[in-house]
Amino acid sequence: MHLMQKYEVSVPVVRRLPRYYRLLQELERNGVTRTSSRELGKRLGMTASQIRQDLSCFGCFGRQGCGYAVKELRENLEQIIGLPDLLPMILVGAGSLGKVVSENVRFEERGFRLIGIFDIKPELIGKRLAELQIQPIEELESFCAAKKPVAAVLCLPKESAQAVAERLVLFGVRGLWNFSHCDIAVEQAEVITVHLDDSLMTLSYKLHNL
Amino acid sequence: MHLMQKYEVSVPVVRRLPRYYRLLQELERNGVTRTSSRELGKRLGMTASQIRQDLSCFGCFGRQGCGYAVKELRENLEQIIGLPDLLPMILVGAGSLGKVVSENVRFEERGFRLIGIFDIKPELIGKRLAELQIQPIEELESFCAAKKPVAAVLCLPKESAQAVAERLVLFGVRGLWNFSHCDIAVEQAEVITVHLDDSLMTLSYKLHNL
Repeated sequence: MHLMQKYEVSVPVVRRLPRYYRLLQELERNGVTRTSSRELGKRLGMTASQIRQDLSCFGCFGRQGCGYAVKELRENLEQIIGLPDLLPMILVGAGSLGKVVSENVRFEERGFRLIGIFDIKPELIGKRLAELQIQPIEELESFCAAKKPVAAVLCLPKESAQAVAERLVLFGVRGLWNFSHCDIAVEQAEVITVHLDDSLMTLSYKLHNL
Repeated sequence: MHLMQKYEVSVPVVRRLPRYYRLLQELERNGVTRTSSRELGKRLGMTASQIRQDLSCFGCFGRQGCGYAVKELRENLEQIIGLPDLLPMILVGAGSLGKVVSENVRFEERGFRLIGIFDIKPELIGKRLAELQIQPIEELESFCAAKKPVAAVLCLPKESAQAVAERLVLFGVRGLWNFSHCDIAVEQAEVITVHLDDSLMTLSYKLHNL
């Protein structure tokens, strides 16, 4: 792991980082070399001053009248998010949800390397998913001891998510990306639960209000 | 459609509505009857004053010293998001992604009713998904003319997403919930693109910084 500066910023600012990063990637792809807090704000539905405030948390300051150099800012955010330092990750639950996640998520562009997939169902063991062979859940402990995954994706039925999460933390996993439809409470680990349908409510709001 | 008051609020405030709504549901499930902007802020990583400001956009004012009645606030947000008025929605693309979305998203709790599923692949036509029979894409136009879906979920390869989106808008669809890995530009429709892996970057950040 690189020696990196650590930042202390609020949760909402952290949540906005991926959106800044994606927007900068898009601008760069479209050949844009400079941008401003006003332009970024317009694209993200925020004020210029919010943008400046957010980015300054990470020491990214635009120059008055010149704005931000797109490539430089994108590279800075890349370092800040930790993307160049791929963390080893496993996936537990190779059913239809696990299949979609493992095949659709670009782990290596998002800071992780998928190194193992586990399931409980005998008929899935040995099959290949995302270029990995599905392993039996019984091997989770020895695998973690040997390969030391830092994070895990949970694509489990909600009945088993909490128990598996607790075992993973015992085995040294420090970050959980949870697709199971339930909240998970574990100490000593970061848990991010994906609510697939949150943005569907936003669409409902917009169709009723705009 | 109910006659509802229309609100004009910024995009980030709209994006936060589902999180407020989910948190209130959770508090209610846990038997909490009253809450405060400070408590809500603590749970959501925001300041009490941001919470008050956001909620006041929708005319939801807590009472000084008394805070908010959980059930009442949850019901108000439900109306504001438009959840009781289920909008007819179709899903296009019944592959593995479409299967996971149709089977895992609780459409009726999120303001929509799934009324049709379409695909281009002959081998999928007639099969059942989420209690609906998959229909051939050729029937999209006549189906839309007859059933007037207001919104559509796109679970398509990125090569075909834009073209299908444009056709859907011609057929009267006004809202697109896009799971295809690409940006879609259509006029006269709201597009919300789901970036499955955004929160994975947040996890990367946290594992490097916390």
